[in-house]
Amino acid sequence: MKKQSQEGLTVKKSENFSEWYSQIIQKAEIVDLRLGTKGFIIIRPFGALAMENMYGIYEKELQRNGHKPVIMPSVIPESNLKKESSHVKGFTPEVFWLETDKDDEKLALRPTSETVFTPMFSYWIRSHKDLPLKLYQKGSVFRYDTKSTRPLIRGREFNWIEAHNAFATKEEAEAQVIEDIKMTETVMHGKFGIPFLAMKRPQWDKFAGAEYTIGSDVVMPDGKLIQQPSTHYMGQIFSRAFEATFTDKNEKEEYLYTTAYGPAISRILASVISTHGDDKGLVFPYCIAPLNLVIVPIYNKKNKEKVLKYIDKIENKLKLMELKFEVDGRDDYSPGWKFNEWELKGVPFRLEIGEREVKNKKLTLFIRDSGEKINISVSELKNLNKLGKEFDDRLLKNSEKLMRGRIVNCKTKKELEKAMKDGKIARVDWCSINEEGFGCAEKIEKDVLAEVRGTLANKKEKSKGKCIVCGKPAKEIVYIAKSY
Amino acid sequence: MKKQSQEGLTVKKSENFSEWYSQIIQKAEIVDLRLGTKGFIIIRPFGALAMENMYGIYEKELQRNGHKPVIMPSVIPESNLKKESSHVKGFTPEVFWLETDKDDEKLALRPTSETVFTPMFSYWIRSHKDLPLKLYQKGSVFRYDTKSTRPLIRGREFNWIEAHNAFATKEEAEAQVIEDIKMTETVMHGKFGIPFLAMKRPQWDKFAGAEYTIGSDVVMPDGKLIQQPSTHYMGQIFSRAFEATFTDKNEKEEYLYTTAYGPAISRILASVISTHGDDKGLVFPYCIAPLNLVIVPIYNKKNKEKVLKYIDKIENKLKLMELKFEVDGRDDYSPGWKFNEWELKGVPFRLEIGEREVKNKKLTLFIRDSGEKINISVSELKNLNKLGKEFDDRLLKNSEKLMRGRIVNCKTKKELEKAMKDGKIARVDWCSINEEGFGCAEKIEKDVLAEVRGTLANKKEKSKGKCIVCGKPAKEIVYIAKSY
Repeated sequence: MKKQSQEGLTVKKSENFSEWYSQIIQKAEIVDLRLGTKGFIIIRPFGALAMENMYGIYEKELQRNGHKPVIMPSVIPESNLKKESSHVKGFTPEVFWLETDKDDEKLALRPTSETVFTPMFSYWIRSHKDLPLKLYQKGSVFRYDTKSTRPLIRGREFNWIEAHNAFATKEEAEAQVIEDIKMTETVMHGKFGIPFLAMKRPQWDKFAGAEYTIGSDVVMPDGKLIQQPSTHYMGQIFSRAFEATFTDKNEKEEYLYTTAYGPAISRILASVISTHGDDKGLVFPYCIAPLNLVIVPIYNKKNKEKVLKYIDKIENKLKLMELKFEVDGRDDYSPGWKFNEWELKGVPFRLEIGEREVKNKKLTLFIRDSGEKINISVSELKNLNKLGKEFDDRLLKNSEKLMRGRIVNCKTKKELEKAMKDGKIARVDWCSINEEGFGCAEKIEKDVLAEVRGTLANKKEKSKGKCIVCGKPAKEIVYIAKSY
Repeated sequence: MKKQSQEGLTVKKSENFSEWYSQIIQKAEIVDLRLGTKGFIIIRPFGALAMENMYGIYEKELQRNGHKPVIMPSVIPESNLKKESSHVKGFTPEVFWLETDKDDEKLALRPTSETVFTPMFSYWIRSHKDLPLKLYQKGSVFRYDTKSTRPLIRGREFNWIEAHNAFATKEEAEAQVIEDIKMTETVMHGKFGIPFLAMKRPQWDKFAGAEYTIGSDVVMPDGKLIQQPSTHYMGQIFSRAFEATFTDKNEKEEYLYTTAYGPAISRILASVISTHGDDKGLVFPYCIAPLNLVIVPIYNKKNKEKVLKYIDKIENKLKLMELKFEVDGRDDYSPGWKFNEWELKGVPFRLEIGEREVKNKKLTLFIRDSGEKINISVSELKNLNKLGKEFDDRLLKNSEKLMRGRIVNCKTKKELEKAMKDGKIARVDWCSINEEGFGCAEKIEKDVLAEVRGTLANKKEKSKGKCIVCGKPAKEIVYIAKSY
C-alpha cells in the first residue's frame, strides 16, 4: 500500500471558490504551472484529452454548418496587423513581436487572425458565386497580457478556434452572427452543460475593429461572469481596410461583409471545471470526459485471479462499445484510495468488481454526480452510453437552475449594490449601450465595481423604466455583474 | 458555362518534378503562398482536411502504443533552451526569439521541446513505478531557417507531432526507438503508402543532444531523399542536464533514459503529394483523402429533375456509410470541367450519374489512380470502403516498386557518380559512421554532391568489402544519395 498520503482538496467550493479552483486544476492533473513562465501553462493528459474531445465536438458542429478548416501561420506581418486602425489600437499594446533580421519584415505572434484572413479573402473570392466563404482554424493565439493571469482563464497563450466568414450582404453576415450564437447554444450549453447569456456588448466594449460584438457570458460559482465564445460583426470595416472586394449579382464591385467567431477551448474547459465540479473534485460531462468509466478491482491474495478473470470478460464486452474506459490495476493502492482519486478526477462512472460481484453476476456502478451506487447486470452494460446521456442532462439541468437563480431585477442603485455583494447578475433599466451611455457605465464601475455586460442578443427585451443611473428614459435592459 | 479556362498542370511530373510540385500544391488548392512571408504558408481546406486525417491516424497509433497527449507552451524560456550544451549549439542559430519586457525572461519559439519535457519529467516521475512515461504533443514548431524554404518541405513554421518518452533503463529506451520505427512503418508506409529507409545517421549528422538518431529517408521523384519521422535516443544526456532523476528498483537515485520521435505531418503530406501524384494531378490515398468520393451529375434542362432525384437516393445510401463525399452541383461548370478539377485534386473515386445511369439502374465509377471506369449497381456502393482499401494497396505496391528500383550497389566512385546522376540511392561499403568516417563523407559531399545517409537501422547488413573512399576495411554498408 502506497504510504504517500492522498492529495485531496483542502477547501470547499462554496467556501473559497478561488482556492478550490487553484487546487482542483493541479490536483486533478489538468494543468501544471511549474514551468514558471507567466501566462504559459502546461496542459496534462487528463486536460488535453478532454480538450481534444471538446475540439472534436466543436469542429463537427462548425463543419456541419458549412465551415472548412484552414491552417494559417502563427505569425502576422506587421503591415497586415497595422492595416485597420481601430484594430491596431486595440491589439498592439498586447502583441508579442519576434526579433527578426533587418531584411525580414517584423512579425507578430497572432493575437487573432482577421488581418490574415481578410487579405486572403480577396484572393479566394472573385464573385458572389464564391460566397459565402466560411473557414475556421484551431490553434494557439498569444496576448502579451500585463494583467494578472489565471490558468485556463487568462493567459499569454491560449487554445481556441477562430472562424472567419465572408458574405455578399449585410443580412447574410448578420444571419451568421445568429448561427454563431446557436452553435454556442448547441455545443457549450447543450453538450458541455454551460448555460450563458448572449450579450450584445455596449459600443465601448466591442472587439477592436468590429461594428458590434456578441459575447457569451457564463457565470462562475463566485458570481463573476466570464466571457466565453464571442462573435464579431465587422460589416465592411476590415474588407475596406484590405481592399477585399467581390463582384456582386449586378456585376458591381462591392466590399465583403465579414464576421468572426472565437470559442476558446481552454477557457471553456475552465467553465466546465468550475460549473460541474464539487467538493470531492471534478465532474466531467460524459461526452467530453477523458475517461467515461474506470473499473476498480477489489480482491485479496486468494480471490485475485478469479476477480481479474471476470474483469477480463467485462473488458471484452466494453471494447465493443464506443466508450473510453480503463482498468485501474495498480497493486500498491487500495480500492478506497483509487475511488478518491477517480472521484477527484471527475470520471463519470466507476465499476467496482470484487468477490461479491463475481458471485452474484452483478456489477456495482458508482455514479459520480449523484454519488449513488446501483447494481446492474452484465447485460445492462450496453446502456452505459444512455446513462451517460442522462448524466449530462442532469449536469445541464443543474447548471441552468443555478444560472436562473443568479439573475435579479434591480430598480435602484441600492438593490444593485446588494445584488453585486450577493454574487448576482443584475437586470436593470439603462439609458443606452451606445457611446452616450458610457458615462453611466463608468459610474457603475467606480461605485459598484461592476460592469455593464450588454443587452440580450437573442431575445428582444423592452424597457419601460428609467436608467438606474441617470434617470433618463431607458432604451434598454442591460445585465450588470462583476467579471473576470 | 464558366468562361474562365481551367488551370491544369502545364508540366509533366517525370519531366520537371520541381515545377510540377510547385504547380500542383497551388492549383490543387493545398497551400497558398500569397501571404508572402518567407517560410510561413497557408494550408487551405483541402490540405488541412488531409492533414487532419493524417494527424488522426498517427495519434491513434501513438495512443495504441501507450502515448498520452499533452499541450506544452509554444515558447521555451531561454534558461531551459540553453541548459544542454550540444543542443544549444545545434539549435540556437535558428531560433526565433520574442521581444520581452526586461522583467520577463527571454523566450524562444520552440524549435523542438526536449528542454521543456525533460525538466517536467522530474516533477512527474518519482520512482520506477511511474515509468515508462510516454507523452506526445501536436502543434507547430519554428525554425528561423536561413536556407531556402520550400512549401511543406522546409519552412519556418511546420506542423508536427513530437513524442517524448522516459524510461528506467537503456534497454527499454532503445526498445522505444524500435517501436518508433515500427510506427513509421505502420502509419507512413502502411497507411499513407510511403516506403522509407530507416537510417541510423552517422555521428556527424545526429540530432543536437542525442546519442544517436534514426531518420526515415523517403525518396522523391527526382531521386533526392527527404528526411521524414526521426527518432532520437538521448540516453541520459538531457536528464543529466536537467537533473531529471528517479528512484530505481534498488531504491537508488538514477538519471532517466529519454527518447524523442518527431513525425512532421506537413512534410509527410509533401511526400504523399510527390509520391502518388501523376501528370493529371494529385492522387490521395483513400484513408486520408479530404473527399473519398465526388458525385458529378450529368443532365440537361429536360432530365435535370429526374437525375437529381436519383442522386438524392444515392446520397441517402452513402450517408449511412463512413465515407466523405460531396455532390458537385455547380451549375456553371460542365461535367468535363468538373472531372478535370476533381482529378487534379486527387479524389479517389467519382460517380458519374446521368440519364443512362438512371435508366440502367447502374452507376459509373471512375477510379483516379488507374483511370478506369467501371459499372456498379447501387447495392455495390457498400463495397466502396473495400475498393478504397484496394486503391491504397495499389498505391503502396507501386511506391514500393519505385523505391526498390532506386537502390543500386556501387563498388567504385565512378559507379557512385553515375548512380547520383541517374537519381539513384547508392548502397556502398564504408569505413565507419563514427567520427573517423567523417573525412570520407566530406570527400563524397565535395566530389559527388551527395550525402552519407547512414546504415539500415532495422536490419543488420555486414560488409566484407573496402570503403569506397579510403579503401580501408569497411565496417558498414551505408546509403548515399542527394537530399533535400
